[in-house]
Amino acid sequence: MSGEINRRVVLARRPGPDGVDPTCFRLEETAKPTPQPGELLIRVLWLSCDPAMRGWIAEGPNYSEPVPLGGVMRSFTLGRVEAGDHPDYPVGAYVSGRQGWQDWAISDGSDVDRIVDPDQAPLSANLHLLGMTGLTAYLGLVDVGRPKAGDTLVVSTAAGAVGGAVGQIAKIFGCRTVGITGSAAKAADCTELYGYDAALTYRDYADAEALSAALAKACPGGVDIYYDMTGGWISDAVMAQLAVGARVVVVGTMAIPSSPPPTGPRYSRQILVKRASMTGFLVLDHFDRLGEAVEQLGAWYRDGRLRFREDVIEGLEKAPQALMKLLDGTNRGKVLVKVAD
Amino acid sequence: MSGEINRRVVLARRPGPDGVDPTCFRLEETAKPTPQPGELLIRVLWLSCDPAMRGWIAEGPNYSEPVPLGGVMRSFTLGRVEAGDHPDYPVGAYVSGRQGWQDWAISDGSDVDRIVDPDQAPLSANLHLLGMTGLTAYLGLVDVGRPKAGDTLVVSTAAGAVGGAVGQIAKIFGCRTVGITGSAAKAADCTELYGYDAALTYRDYADAEALSAALAKACPGGVDIYYDMTGGWISDAVMAQLAVGARVVVVGTMAIPSSPPPTGPRYSRQILVKRASMTGFLVLDHFDRLGEAVEQLGAWYRDGRLRFREDVIEGLEKAPQALMKLLDGTNRGKVLVKVAD
Repeated sequence: MSGEINRRVVLARRPGPDGVDPTCFRLEETAKPTPQPGELLIRVLWLSCDPAMRGWIAEGPNYSEPVPLGGVMRSFTLGRVEAGDHPDYPVGAYVSGRQGWQDWAISDGSDVDRIVDPDQAPLSANLHLLGMTGLTAYLGLVDVGRPKAGDTLVVSTAAGAVGGAVGQIAKIFGCRTVGITGSAAKAADCTELYGYDAALTYRDYADAEALSAALAKACPGGVDIYYDMTGGWISDAVMAQLAVGARVVVVGTMAIPSSPPPTGPRYSRQILVKRASMTGFLVLDHFDRLGEAVEQLGAWYRDGRLRFREDVIEGLEKAPQALMKLLDGTNRGKVLVKVAD
Repeated sequence: MSGEINRRVVLARRPGPDGVDPTCFRLEETAKPTPQPGELLIRVLWLSCDPAMRGWIAEGPNYSEPVPLGGVMRSFTLGRVEAGDHPDYPVGAYVSGRQGWQDWAISDGSDVDRIVDPDQAPLSANLHLLGMTGLTAYLGLVDVGRPKAGDTLVVSTAAGAVGGAVGQIAKIFGCRTVGITGSAAKAADCTELYGYDAALTYRDYADAEALSAALAKACPGGVDIYYDMTGGWISDAVMAQLAVGARVVVVGTMAIPSSPPPTGPRYSRQILVKRASMTGFLVLDHFDRLGEAVEQLGAWYRDGRLRFREDVIEGLEKAPQALMKLLDGTNRGKVLVKVAD
């Protein structure tokens, strides 16, 4: 236990036109809370940094309520039940949930997702491969991308936590996989760690046209599945290389600023001519399938067919810096904050 | 019969940046052809003008081979078999097919789609409601749009041949229907002829934002299905009003010039936040389902549940003007050229 203090990182202001920076957040200290009957006290051990956080703190309309100003920053977390009498979550259980950027959280159970088995995989893996990240990769690829043997898959942010899993799952389905990433080190992760058949570093290309020409060489039969986490000019390059019947899975828009409303090439004609589809996928709609995904992904992990890389920052107070690392793209692997043992 | 002359309208040049104009075409006279063994001689009676023609004569990549310079303009046609010994198409049969802008056509049967029953509906209806137009409306709406009772449907070019059918079929499925069209007269067709619940004339609005605000009023629960034949700023207005889970059926891009590559607002974020899909639909992929569609649409027509309006221009030599009428949007109803009785 860490005494009677609860540290928490709250939203101090919303990002301006230049995007998120650490001054959007503020560290506060309050009294360590005490659970009431029916409540849990959870010790937060690990925090997950995710691209969706940019949307959670933005003002504009999004797929979930914005984090209120002064409120604890929303986050997927891994913790341990320290006290309480909730029938579903006994003291001592490890749980994944949405307890936010703080040392201690009170919960009525509604923001706890599941009990985690610490023997199945490293605890922290439940915040990525065996958590929302894996669910996003698995369902987005399998349900929306509909991979089949011989398909060519392209992934943007291919060496990220989601992208690395998508590439490996697609290989299990027999796809040819091509990753797009932001640095030579990440490109090396794509081919050496995640088994991509080819990897392109987008910074090597002057514009979408140049990247598209490189993609054309890497994907001579066109792109059957585009698992897209960036949008923007990287997507412009991929959209120009779609094969007939292509499926574009829109999972993130990291390369598109929140404001002003972004413009770019219109895709309608490519979508029509290639009889392609672009479909938005939000993992928040699919929590009910987490168990199914964890079972499949855990089995593949234990078979040695899925690998991952973590980028761990220690200390709750460094959570804003960890998020910046993710948003700047200077991370290598899944960005996690270790809060306590 | 019209003597020994075959008149035909050929492609004289491809459209430039200003788009199609009548000088893209040239009327020629050649000898009336004679069928060889296994061939048919078809008297062309009706020509259909379709938005896709703009793509057929453009240079850029498209979903079918471009019409060659000097070649007979490609067109859906309704004709009568005048001579020949083809086993599937006896002399005297009415046939729909792709005989092009000419008086007489020789065919080996491969460009004939089907025999038409002249008692089922007016002959010309086989060039729209009981032809590609109806197939486009029916499959695009039912297969891709997946209408269900209570859904709100928006159609761009709602008073056109496809749009009028889409609106009526959606009503049969229990949808609320809102049409977007280019003139007050067409808006009146939407509500009075095709049963739309509301119709908006896009020319009444200064920009996409203003049109979008009007759509928000007409679609208080958002847009569940957008049957899109325009793209461009009209689509920008609709895309801003999508409901969660919306299906956008991309059937045409009339409002998007072929060149230079068009730009506009990026839709990726709307697609993601609304878990929407945008899917290209090309009727050319679905010829094998024409019989099924004609049967269903014919039954609804004879039940009085489907109505249509034709805009008939007489004379093969006026086919380019008829096409201009369609592309300018000054038509009212399906644009047809009557070549002969």
